Amino acid sequence: MDDTTAARLPALATFRRSTGACRWEGVDEHAYKEEGSAPFRAITRRVLFGDPRLSCELRYFEVAPGGYSTLERHEHVHGVMILRGAGTCLVGDEVRAVAEHDLVSIPPMAWHQFRAAPDAPLGFLCMVDIARDRPRLPTEAELAALRRDPAIAAFLDGG
Amino acid sequence: MDDTTAARLPALATFRRSTGACRWEGVDEHAYKEEGSAPFRAITRRVLFGDPRLSCELRYFEVAPGGYSTLERHEHVHGVMILRGAGTCLVGDEVRAVAEHDLVSIPPMAWHQFRAAPDAPLGFLCMVDIARDRPRLPTEAELAALRRDPAIAAFLDGG
Repeated sequence: MDDTTAARLPALATFRRSTGACRWEGVDEHAYKEEGSAPFRAITRRVLFGDPRLSCELRYFEVAPGGYSTLERHEHVHGVMILRGAGTCLVGDEVRAVAEHDLVSIPPMAWHQFRAAPDAPLGFLCMVDIARDRPRLPTEAELAALRRDPAIAAFLDGG
Repeated sequence: MDDTTAARLPALATFRRSTGACRWEGVDEHAYKEEGSAPFRAITRRVLFGDPRLSCELRYFEVAPGGYSTLERHEHVHGVMILRGAGTCLVGDEVRAVAEHDLVSIPPMAWHQFRAAPDAPLGFLCMVDIARDRPRLPTEAELAALRRDPAIAAFLDGG
């Protein structure tokens, strides 16, 4: 390795080992969001790649059994891969069961939420642009409109 | 879903299921590179997320037992997660065994190569900026310099 390269080594360690069950050396667990800022339950966040020389981040979210992410939408898109466990997700007007390695694309302004199964965690990778807009929560009218679909209402009720 | 959202749905299906063993519905296998353009052996490429509204792509590469990616370097960085199997990789002047869910960060201009174990495939996710420079191959002098490290020489010889 030449001096130029050495001078530019990142703060991130080159190698970070998995310690099993979707945990890693040198990767800290964070709160999903600020408590009380939006509805969610039993979900954690880890940044696997947050290198300023990349235009995207790769995060790992894990929802404990019975937990869920915030129901929200935004202009930016998400590329998601389920990494662990099982659950259900809502994207736009579709509700689907998801399991290990399934891919989920979240288009601009599509309502989305991830829910873990009652008896399994749901862990997923999420690739997202570093420069992105803030998520928006549904108004009461928007929530009522979503609930008109029985499949979505059952999903939102954890059914 | 309102009309604005519907009009902007992506070409990518929202849900693409894993069919097991790191294969997916709606994800095609591609040649790793143009044959003869650079040294490599027994490696395939899949683009899991190549959405033009994301600044990065998420690719899945799979090296068959005994195969290897091209030894190369470039200014852009890679964020890698091993998804399947086992192998060894060189980054800069480090050679490390890697296994499922290990994370590898490839800094700018660090020589790197991935080699599958003799008896297992090595499958990995690689997040990369869509706008990026072309990989450069080592000159004979650069290769000789790398080989001065016995661990790197053994790695390059598949040892």
